[in-house]
Amino acid sequence: MPEQELTDKVVASFDTAKDERFRELMQALVRHAHAFVRETGLTDEEWGAAIEFLTAAGHITTDTRQEFVLLSDVLGISMLTVAVNEPGLGESTQSTVLGPFFVQDSPRIELGGDIAGGATGEPSWVTGRVTDTHGNPVAGARVEVWEADDDGMYDVQYDDGALAGRAHLFTDGEGGCRFWGLTPTPYPIPDDGPVGRLLHHAGRSPMRAPHLHFKVTAPGFRPLVTHIFVAGDPWLDSDSVFGVKESLIRPFDRHRAGTPTPDGRPLEGPWTSTTFDIVLGKE
Amino acid sequence: MPEQELTDKVVASFDTAKDERFRELMQALVRHAHAFVRETGLTDEEWGAAIEFLTAAGHITTDTRQEFVLLSDVLGISMLTVAVNEPGLGESTQSTVLGPFFVQDSPRIELGGDIAGGATGEPSWVTGRVTDTHGNPVAGARVEVWEADDDGMYDVQYDDGALAGRAHLFTDGEGGCRFWGLTPTPYPIPDDGPVGRLLHHAGRSPMRAPHLHFKVTAPGFRPLVTHIFVAGDPWLDSDSVFGVKESLIRPFDRHRAGTPTPDGRPLEGPWTSTTFDIVLGKE
Repeated sequence: MPEQELTDKVVASFDTAKDERFRELMQALVRHAHAFVRETGLTDEEWGAAIEFLTAAGHITTDTRQEFVLLSDVLGISMLTVAVNEPGLGESTQSTVLGPFFVQDSPRIELGGDIAGGATGEPSWVTGRVTDTHGNPVAGARVEVWEADDDGMYDVQYDDGALAGRAHLFTDGEGGCRFWGLTPTPYPIPDDGPVGRLLHHAGRSPMRAPHLHFKVTAPGFRPLVTHIFVAGDPWLDSDSVFGVKESLIRPFDRHRAGTPTPDGRPLEGPWTSTTFDIVLGKE
Repeated sequence: MPEQELTDKVVASFDTAKDERFRELMQALVRHAHAFVRETGLTDEEWGAAIEFLTAAGHITTDTRQEFVLLSDVLGISMLTVAVNEPGLGESTQSTVLGPFFVQDSPRIELGGDIAGGATGEPSWVTGRVTDTHGNPVAGARVEVWEADDDGMYDVQYDDGALAGRAHLFTDGEGGCRFWGLTPTPYPIPDDGPVGRLLHHAGRSPMRAPHLHFKVTAPGFRPLVTHIFVAGDPWLDSDSVFGVKESLIRPFDRHRAGTPTPDGRPLEGPWTSTTFDIVLGKE
């Protein structure tokens, strides 16, 4: 069977799919996957290596370790998916990758509370306002925040099952949001599995630019998944998952030990502060 | 970051790979995967469903169940890989997919022996000659054969770890090869996992056209991985892995119970016979 005839036959095999969108996706997948094989002249050994890679990725994946998300991330597929779903260049806050460390049931904290929950790191006072694209406050928006500790570990990577470095809170009547987080530090994505070996083979670093994750939801608004990044950090230009967007880089002001905190919280060491206003687009 | 700029950045991230072929493959993979996401406008939910699919495929995969090979097979990727590696339309026997059921250490049988080893089914006498493209016999070629039993199961799908329905033998001084196999019967590829659900959603059948697998190797020759298919079978036109090639379809002659067998083997029931001459190309 000539090669194009084979591709046509595989594409046609999905004609019987009842769900139109499923059919469209599968037929596009077949066409692009076949174009890749034809263009590269993929060998049997390379095909076998791909099967082994996927198998190893599947076997290392657990409830708390998601190698396929990492793979999608380091190939820029996650970020591109974010990009194609982003509403046109508008006034709403830009999105970035969800990453593999989001958890559905985070602890709730009050406004001004602390998300650390035992995660270690330098305290960071984060304030901001959630508004719509006309500048009107969005009261009662649910703000999820999560981040790594200063060892670069998320709670789900701990052995003890504790929830730490993550919480959710709700904006006040003026859309105001404030909490204590940790000053983000650079960390490698988990690189002891097949994706780590891929990066190593590519001569690429697994390091992520330091960031704090946000997921913001409110009725009638498009959910926002994003990060804020630390201005001036050396990893901003080589984030391993291509997640950095200029508009999401925020200065984190440094305060010496002993500087009074905005809410009177007593702190022994230095701390930082930043602001991040969030604009939600309508659904 | 505009979408093309993102793709360019991800492609460039592999510039540091020392292995030129690895770089070429990864950069092509990124370009084609990104083209798929852009063309389809893949949604976050669809991306999530793909991650779940791959995770489920990884988790069902074991030493004896290879869901990623099944996925590659039903998307025609395995068959296309075979096609792009096939030397030009020559005189050598055509290849088809290896499939997920090959095992390295099959039992050795003598010429004229039986591969069944306990696998049930109608006996089939298979004879043929292995030659080079000039018609010269290839003596001492290693011929691996394997197939499903008449319940459509390969030995690796049994619970008892037995080897059955598979063996290897060596051609004689004239390149001759003969053995008792089983008349191939149609069977579904394992369809109780994510690939089965994908086929179901596509309105596609998991059935494979009946076949007997061959892998033939000899020093100085290109290894041949192929099947023979049963002429007249209704599944020839809709093989779930697109493996059928016209040149590999062989008549299986049917013999009534009591018909004397070529080697004098006593058989109670009916049996079949077929011939399959194999031409190996030089390496």
